[in-house]
Amino acid sequence: MRTQVAIIGAGPAGLLLSHLLHLQGIESIVLESRSREEIEATIRAGVLEQGTMDILTEAGVGDRMRAEGALHHGIELAFGGRRHRIDLTELTGKAITVYPQHEVIKDLVAARVAAQGQLLFQVTDVGIQGVETTQPSVTFTHKGEQHKIEADFVVGADGYHGVSRPAMPGQEQRNNYQKIYPFGWFGILVEAPISSEELIYAQHERGFALISTRTPTVQRMYFQCDPTDHVDNWSDDRIWAELHARTESNDGWKLKEGKIFQKGIIGMRSFVSTPMQSGRLFLAGDAAHIVPPTGAKGMNLAVSDVALLARGLDQFYKKGSEQRLQTYTEDALKRIWRAEYFSWTMTRLLHTFADATPFEREMQRAELDNVVNSRALATSLAENYVGAF
Amino acid sequence: MRTQVAIIGAGPAGLLLSHLLHLQGIESIVLESRSREEIEATIRAGVLEQGTMDILTEAGVGDRMRAEGALHHGIELAFGGRRHRIDLTELTGKAITVYPQHEVIKDLVAARVAAQGQLLFQVTDVGIQGVETTQPSVTFTHKGEQHKIEADFVVGADGYHGVSRPAMPGQEQRNNYQKIYPFGWFGILVEAPISSEELIYAQHERGFALISTRTPTVQRMYFQCDPTDHVDNWSDDRIWAELHARTESNDGWKLKEGKIFQKGIIGMRSFVSTPMQSGRLFLAGDAAHIVPPTGAKGMNLAVSDVALLARGLDQFYKKGSEQRLQTYTEDALKRIWRAEYFSWTMTRLLHTFADATPFEREMQRAELDNVVNSRALATSLAENYVGAF
Repeated sequence: MRTQVAIIGAGPAGLLLSHLLHLQGIESIVLESRSREEIEATIRAGVLEQGTMDILTEAGVGDRMRAEGALHHGIELAFGGRRHRIDLTELTGKAITVYPQHEVIKDLVAARVAAQGQLLFQVTDVGIQGVETTQPSVTFTHKGEQHKIEADFVVGADGYHGVSRPAMPGQEQRNNYQKIYPFGWFGILVEAPISSEELIYAQHERGFALISTRTPTVQRMYFQCDPTDHVDNWSDDRIWAELHARTESNDGWKLKEGKIFQKGIIGMRSFVSTPMQSGRLFLAGDAAHIVPPTGAKGMNLAVSDVALLARGLDQFYKKGSEQRLQTYTEDALKRIWRAEYFSWTMTRLLHTFADATPFEREMQRAELDNVVNSRALATSLAENYVGAF
Repeated sequence: MRTQVAIIGAGPAGLLLSHLLHLQGIESIVLESRSREEIEATIRAGVLEQGTMDILTEAGVGDRMRAEGALHHGIELAFGGRRHRIDLTELTGKAITVYPQHEVIKDLVAARVAAQGQLLFQVTDVGIQGVETTQPSVTFTHKGEQHKIEADFVVGADGYHGVSRPAMPGQEQRNNYQKIYPFGWFGILVEAPISSEELIYAQHERGFALISTRTPTVQRMYFQCDPTDHVDNWSDDRIWAELHARTESNDGWKLKEGKIFQKGIIGMRSFVSTPMQSGRLFLAGDAAHIVPPTGAKGMNLAVSDVALLARGLDQFYKKGSEQRLQTYTEDALKRIWRAEYFSWTMTRLLHTFADATPFEREMQRAELDNVVNSRALATSLAENYVGAF
């Protein structure tokens, strides 16, 4: 098999890159270890920045997102028994859209299939060769047969646990930046009406909680938990008691309960691995960096990475210049570090840290007070949240 | 001896309170363990917020400050080989004045002496009694003789190491919030011309440095050091080499050297002790709270504490109401926690932490980048620096 760009991973990064390249007349093949059903059902992030919306719309995959996604002009911060609205649009002129990542995946897969794009699911034994040459290749097994793709470029968009990052030459010289947080998020999906028109980020001594929405009848809620806990320890009653305690105060607002049809615990980490390229191999999205979900940046970063890569590859094929490809890591890291900083800040601001000293707890409270009392600091938070940079 | 308000400590808090009370027709006696010469020569902070200026001016002790103090409309942040100006006045409409604390002390002592205020130096063996009654008293030794002041109120403005805070009833129930930083500041006074019209706060891998000024011919400079280090380990040459390395880049700006005539090392801590009152005993300034000097808030907090106390005592004596005195701790803490938060933020932003992980170092760099690239975040920093709240 022969293509121009071999893409490993059919998450938002890999699928969108394949589609952007297609629109530019560049061929690619996408390899994915899971099935189509699995990737279309995996519940992940759900907040899209305006810039992400623009890229998806320009790529022609934004129709359902615009029709079914919910435009949000603000978020609520709940702490100290009160809720405080951060008016994103008034502070920044921008808004965010709540539209689940697996819906973006469905739209992208549909677009790739409609364009007769090459998209192989349930591949195994993926190996990457020759990335320091101009003729890299990817080997894999599909439906019991071994294959080899010869390509001009390989893009690793196969997530944190994928094979691409370990396949980068010079592992000893790589810079890995990491923080593992001492807590996780317990996430549930609920059949229930919407409790709040806008997302509620709650800071409480019992721990963080997030009230989010997927559709008018399906809600997404999270609460900070021990990352080593098990979902079996949490009955529905215990979950609701915890969410009520962390999000409600005496202002009359009540969380609406419903039937919990999915439970899961995710760990929380910040991670950046550089460089994001070596020869003809480029990393994009979670393969190169992870943010804790508090800042809602994960999918947005994946999209901005591949937008850069698509421009770089376009320049290569149209003009024969590798200039933009050569500065990919440097260009991508500007936004990545800002998003890492914001995600770390939001995580620190809103979670309960068991080992925090009394002074550190007061600093957290003072920062929350500062955010809601200083228009300048609220603007900074809003700018980062909507991605106004 | 009998007075209305016995004040322990002749720092900015105690002296200003005594003078504010005098202007309101309320008698006080100030007790100080050091000599007049000593308090007038102790080099401390030097940045006055506009609100501090206003209070000193209204109290009639601002003439020399306005004539000799230097109005600063911005500060410089130096990092990554560049200097970045934070335009305080453009961002907040306010400015700060650089005027050394010991000059404020001289002005206040002169005002108290001119008004024939009772100001006793070199007192020892200070004891506080009966603070839970309406007739508290202070005992002390002065010039070899024991004395007792009977008063309506006692104000402890005798600093972190003073006797007042330990004399508060209910020590077991007190809330003490503290962070001790793993570094100190090496401070020098230099006979040299001004190197920079505005203060330079330098973040450097070798550690923080601050280029400040006292007068056109006397400069104040600091650099982060091991708090257990000794000044004898630092020759003038070694000091200048360190300051040059931390503050200069290739933009042509050069630090001007001169004769170093004072060297000292100070520790760095954040500290708040609550409540700040019990019965008829009130704490003000460093007796109740310490900030690291990075935010330049110490003297400003002392002034805002005693402005609140003066208003509370005025209400008591004019209207017989203790309402404002009863809410003193709560009212004072609003500003104190905001200043503690800012001082901690600036300290964390600008110092080198030996135990920081690579991820944490990148977060520090990202925050600095964010401050100079986001007008909103720069405004938040400027608001806090000038005390615009």
